[in-house]
Amino acid sequence: MTMQRSDVIPLGAHMSLTVTDFEVDDIRFPTSEQLDGSDAMNPDPDYSAAYVVLRTDGAGGEEHDAGTEGHGPGVEGHGFCFTIGRGNDVMAAAIEGLRSYVVGRPAPRTAADLAALYRSLTHDSQLRWLGPEKGVTHMAAGAVLNAAWDLAARLAGKPVWRFLAEMTPEELVSLVDFRYLTDALTPQEALALLRAAEPGRAGRTGRLLAEGYPAYTTSPGWLGYDDDKLVRLAKEAVADGFTQIKLKVGADLDDDIRRLALARRAVGPGIRIAVDANQRWDVAGAVEWMTALAPYDPSWIEEPTSPDDVLGHAAVRAGQPVKVATGEHVANRVVFKQLLQAGAVDFVQIDAARVAGVNENLAVLLLAAKYGVPVCPHAGGVGLCELVQHLSMFDYVAVSGSREDRVIEYVDHLHEHFADPAVVKNGHYVAPRAPGFSARMLPASLAAHRYPQGPVWQARRTPEETGR
Amino acid sequence: MTMQRSDVIPLGAHMSLTVTDFEVDDIRFPTSEQLDGSDAMNPDPDYSAAYVVLRTDGAGGEEHDAGTEGHGPGVEGHGFCFTIGRGNDVMAAAIEGLRSYVVGRPAPRTAADLAALYRSLTHDSQLRWLGPEKGVTHMAAGAVLNAAWDLAARLAGKPVWRFLAEMTPEELVSLVDFRYLTDALTPQEALALLRAAEPGRAGRTGRLLAEGYPAYTTSPGWLGYDDDKLVRLAKEAVADGFTQIKLKVGADLDDDIRRLALARRAVGPGIRIAVDANQRWDVAGAVEWMTALAPYDPSWIEEPTSPDDVLGHAAVRAGQPVKVATGEHVANRVVFKQLLQAGAVDFVQIDAARVAGVNENLAVLLLAAKYGVPVCPHAGGVGLCELVQHLSMFDYVAVSGSREDRVIEYVDHLHEHFADPAVVKNGHYVAPRAPGFSARMLPASLAAHRYPQGPVWQARRTPEETGR
Repeated sequence: MTMQRSDVIPLGAHMSLTVTDFEVDDIRFPTSEQLDGSDAMNPDPDYSAAYVVLRTDGAGGEEHDAGTEGHGPGVEGHGFCFTIGRGNDVMAAAIEGLRSYVVGRPAPRTAADLAALYRSLTHDSQLRWLGPEKGVTHMAAGAVLNAAWDLAARLAGKPVWRFLAEMTPEELVSLVDFRYLTDALTPQEALALLRAAEPGRAGRTGRLLAEGYPAYTTSPGWLGYDDDKLVRLAKEAVADGFTQIKLKVGADLDDDIRRLALARRAVGPGIRIAVDANQRWDVAGAVEWMTALAPYDPSWIEEPTSPDDVLGHAAVRAGQPVKVATGEHVANRVVFKQLLQAGAVDFVQIDAARVAGVNENLAVLLLAAKYGVPVCPHAGGVGLCELVQHLSMFDYVAVSGSREDRVIEYVDHLHEHFADPAVVKNGHYVAPRAPGFSARMLPASLAAHRYPQGPVWQARRTPEETGR
Repeated sequence: MTMQRSDVIPLGAHMSLTVTDFEVDDIRFPTSEQLDGSDAMNPDPDYSAAYVVLRTDGAGGEEHDAGTEGHGPGVEGHGFCFTIGRGNDVMAAAIEGLRSYVVGRPAPRTAADLAALYRSLTHDSQLRWLGPEKGVTHMAAGAVLNAAWDLAARLAGKPVWRFLAEMTPEELVSLVDFRYLTDALTPQEALALLRAAEPGRAGRTGRLLAEGYPAYTTSPGWLGYDDDKLVRLAKEAVADGFTQIKLKVGADLDDDIRRLALARRAVGPGIRIAVDANQRWDVAGAVEWMTALAPYDPSWIEEPTSPDDVLGHAAVRAGQPVKVATGEHVANRVVFKQLLQAGAVDFVQIDAARVAGVNENLAVLLLAAKYGVPVCPHAGGVGLCELVQHLSMFDYVAVSGSREDRVIEYVDHLHEHFADPAVVKNGHYVAPRAPGFSARMLPASLAAHRYPQGPVWQARRTPEETGR
């Protein structure tokens, strides 16, 4: 494989494109009705996306077919934050507040463009006060950044994983904000890591395209499922080629012991079973509960306590024998840095849509590589599998260079709403080949699930009933 | 002094009040025009409040005089988040999203009511996803909670500091959410601390009413001020009875050395000079810069690095001789807990409007007391002095029992907009005597500063120009 610079772009390479519009939607799916996604902290999630579209004055590509609901065909970037229902309107308002950083400006295409956009979105001194770099405003910046990455990768005619994996180490380092990281990772160290991985990129790209990237499934393990459904889905997971499943725990210890024993019997000894407490415990509770579950050999305990509690995670890891994983709710690269510095985690679980998009996740991948800790992304929800697969695949090709002890979460929910859905075959994510970030929802799905005016919601409850 | 239970309430004690309405306003002051509030990270703040009013069906009190803009007189609770401009609309949207937790429900009066409201606002499983317990949604919960405390204290006929200081230890403990805290502080330990302070409450209340609570002033030290203004204001501060001032640092080391030397000459050797970097540095930069400033004897370095970086603060504290303070941007009690566990700070700087209101700040006061670390609140902005004085005064009377090494920040900005403004005399905050949280802005100030429709903003720029 020949290295290409990311600014060599096949689609519209000679056009000067401008972002002409910015559309934000509140999209919600009534998933709480089925108890899909139920866990010890989130009993009734309605998986939702605060969805943003960057429209440009460029014509092109498959948008002709996908249709853009009366706006005419055009090159677009799509992105979103994932939420679980209420508050998705607040997320949408926060995204709307970033409009002026994008609309009327040149469409981002290069690493330099995407680095500049990242800085402008996270360094607005007035908006920064509302975080800094955490919560609603930070997730909003992530949605806009991810839409910009979708746009840039589409303009380059590449899937995001490959768009990234074909950037030079210098370009990749330029995408990262090293502020607050340099006590753990300097730009020079990051550059050295990326350069060391460069010779193997071509070979790993080939293996990735041939074999895919290992997945694990959470579908059997939601707390709201009864024992029969758990056993049936666990067996199906093994039949489908998964070598790891995950169960939600933390509501009742006897139930957890029974469910873990049932799952172990269903899948046999060779399959890993991770467990996930969704932040349910204090330190002592986590140690006690996991000491009781340890005989059933869980491969990790995920989110044993508050995602802000670096020292707490370190104490849980030191206090019981099961490996510790966290990250889906970790607010930013500064907290990830400390989890690694403190030796608090055995697995880093990035989320594509909580931090400031690709740029900040690139920082986390580099930190994890520096500390030698495997990254096993959080996914599920709506669209998180579609996004995060690109980051793990890029990590394999150009950062860590390894798939060992690494798995991407997979949940078989809501993929039918995406134009380029994640595909898992024989327990592996298939590497996307379509340009972009796989982020695009189908126009009909967007129209049906707009909240509260879409027909899916109008059919369910009156606006008064949905007041909360 | 006889202990009173907080449910003994003089005003409307026999009425069953209901919260009938909830009004949210986007209020902004054009402070960036004067460079008041300018520092190394915040060059042009427009001090703002996302303001909430809880209206009830109760008639009473001084509301008759203050007027409520056509809504008729009534017992009300006022609260707000502080922001520095852009994004204040997003905060307002987040507060609006909490309406259903308050409107149509009984007006909170007792510790039990306020504990229940705190839990309902922070434990909504869907909203929790947007934090958890951090950023916009958490600050919104804080604004609503603080408004509820204003309302409850007014109904009790007491200023908030006294309303709190007359609660029993058991009531105070019931207000705290100990989730994620028990590895550092258990409810039993908190109860023991509060009981140990109980015998001295009456004496300290008397001393507080007679002497007030020590203040320090940041007014001389904004980065945007020239040397002459710095020297003049530093001398005025000493003449006004302050024994500590604070300078902003972190933009240019030579400037900082010159300004610190000028300030030291202006105030003489007996006055403490704190410095504040507003998160400007990485760990190594902080250590280097503060080693250079140490000969000028700064009394603390405030926010040397990211507020999320517990381990970074610990490293800065260990790496140079100046004491370390932080907290105004610390997202929640879990991060404060770790700052104390890690020995990362010499001073804890609570902010009245960033965490989940009085309830979560009570947790932080208890944690600080357990670790023996003085609390020196962040204030300034708009209304932060008014709110936070109540928390330090309560701390003195009923928690730490001490004013030693403790000072509340004071900035002489925007107090004229409040019905019950903070009063500093001879370098001390005068204990408020009016019922409530001193949170109420004057109706005319609210009307003038509504953004963007208020006359103050209409006179300055067109709505198009204020798009960002």
